[in-house]
Amino acid sequence: MKRGEMLYEGKAKKIYCTDDPHVVWVSYKDDATAFNGGKKGSIAGKGELNNRISAHFFEHLGSYGVAHHFVKLLSPTEQLARKVTILPIEVVVRNRAAGSLAKRLGLENGVLFPQPVVEFYYKNDDLGDPLINEDHIRLLQLAEPEQVAKIREEALNINELLLSRMDACEIILVDFKLEFGVDESGKLMLADEISPDTCRFWDRETGKPLDKDRFRRDLGDVEAAYREIWTRLGGTAHV
Amino acid sequence: MKRGEMLYEGKAKKIYCTDDPHVVWVSYKDDATAFNGGKKGSIAGKGELNNRISAHFFEHLGSYGVAHHFVKLLSPTEQLARKVTILPIEVVVRNRAAGSLAKRLGLENGVLFPQPVVEFYYKNDDLGDPLINEDHIRLLQLAEPEQVAKIREEALNINELLLSRMDACEIILVDFKLEFGVDESGKLMLADEISPDTCRFWDRETGKPLDKDRFRRDLGDVEAAYREIWTRLGGTAHV
Ligand SMILES: Nc1ncnc2c1ncn2[C@@H]1O[C@H](COP(=O)(O)OP(=O)(O)O)[C@@H](O)[C@H]1O
Ligand SMILES: Nc1ncnc2c1ncn2[C@@H]1O[C@H](COP(=O)(O)OP(=O)(O)O)[C@@H](O)[C@H]1O
Ligand SMILES: [Mg+2]
Ligand SMILES: [Mg+2]
Repeated sequence: MKRGEMLYEGKAKKIYCTDDPHVVWVSYKDDATAFNGGKKGSIAGKGELNNRISAHFFEHLGSYGVAHHFVKLLSPTEQLARKVTILPIEVVVRNRAAGSLAKRLGLENGVLFPQPVVEFYYKNDDLGDPLINEDHIRLLQLAEPEQVAKIREEALNINELLLSRMDACEIILVDFKLEFGVDESGKLMLADEISPDTCRFWDRETGKPLDKDRFRRDLGDVEAAYREIWTRLGGTAHV
Repeated sequence: MKRGEMLYEGKAKKIYCTDDPHVVWVSYKDDATAFNGGKKGSIAGKGELNNRISAHFFEHLGSYGVAHHFVKLLSPTEQLARKVTILPIEVVVRNRAAGSLAKRLGLENGVLFPQPVVEFYYKNDDLGDPLINEDHIRLLQLAEPEQVAKIREEALNINELLLSRMDACEIILVDFKLEFGVDESGKLMLADEISPDTCRFWDRETGKPLDKDRFRRDLGDVEAAYREIWTRLGGTAHV
């Protein structure tokens, strides 16, 4: 497989063509951004850790039948993925109050929900990724109603799988963001990444955040937190 | 019927007890607020016009089978209504892009939607009435899922009825906000008010706003606009 021209450079990854028109080459960066690009920085080793961690989660979910884009690791910071058209919807699943939801609804940080909450955000940096509902999705033609129903169901299924995967690592899965895409045949699948950039992970013992909140809130030890997640997932120390 | 103690003073109305525990006395005020209380003022004659206009709309909707709280007019600025427990959800129906939605989704003001959009906002002044979805409603226990489904259906039905009522007056119904409540027997019904305070009305000929946007945006002729709505609905001039 050969790396071709760059298709897109995002805030956390670069996406390149390959000689297979249905496969992209994903290169994870150390760049970190928060508050819709309002805060910028770099986390040493993040590209490598997120590439590994995301690959691990996609393989784990795949083993439970979740359709996803991950193909294989290429290098410490690179992987191959099915090329998809990303639906411009950020799907957030929340098990506890934190971040923007705690603020929006006036809830105490960390409160456990009786049932998970699913939210859709319009993936649009210019508009600041606003919260939307299913009528907005239909209006903007971001996805078909059947796709939305399937995404919601799959997001809740993924939540169950990730909750027990993280529980085995003594980590609380507070919330996470997913992106879905459609391949050339129209098949819907989980895409993008699952990593400490896109999840809130709290140490079960201490409640300490082990995710991008350390960067957002200047809590320090950012790289160590990402590495801790990788280690708890059984990753080898040398990464 | 006797007016008893004041139960609640809101931004636009005062609600009093009556000697019937299931009926409240509603007194419409001239006070006007916008931007969640950030802008305050008074519109001469608004209390009278909104009391009349809202009574007219509730009677009109009632004649098409919509369950509602309106009982009867008492005076130019007062009416009786069934006492309900208001569900803390503001239900917005939109036929065209305007206001916060146009901004949120980056849509051009006035664009006609192929289908109406229904939105739910958490009626909570401290939080600034945030947009919410059905998972948030369940989480906060603002309403039962069956009530939410019924409210959505009824809001769309009311939209159809109001669209044709306003069309007959050569007015474009851009969007509006509804509140629903539950009476002592658990019956769900439309409550609060329907008026130029809670609807966007545009003159079909000129596109001129005939509603609270004249106050919000300092467009002038606020009272005349409210009076124009009342006149077009067939109201008598002396009000
Ligand atoms: N399998 C895929 N095929 C095509 N694009 C993808 C795939 N997976 C993720 N993407 C997209 O790659 C882009 C780069 O990722 P990222 O750096 O996270 O971007 P962003 O700044 O939009 O968050 C994003 O738009 C993401 O949606
Ligand atoms: N039939 C009713 N029974 C009880 N309360 C009602 C009824 N209709 C409306 N209300 C409530 O009366 C209050 C006063 O109205 P308003 O001045 O518009 O208040 P607000 O400042 O909350 O918009 C509101 O909380 C409204 O929801
Ligand atoms: Mg991203
Ligand atoms: Mg009100």
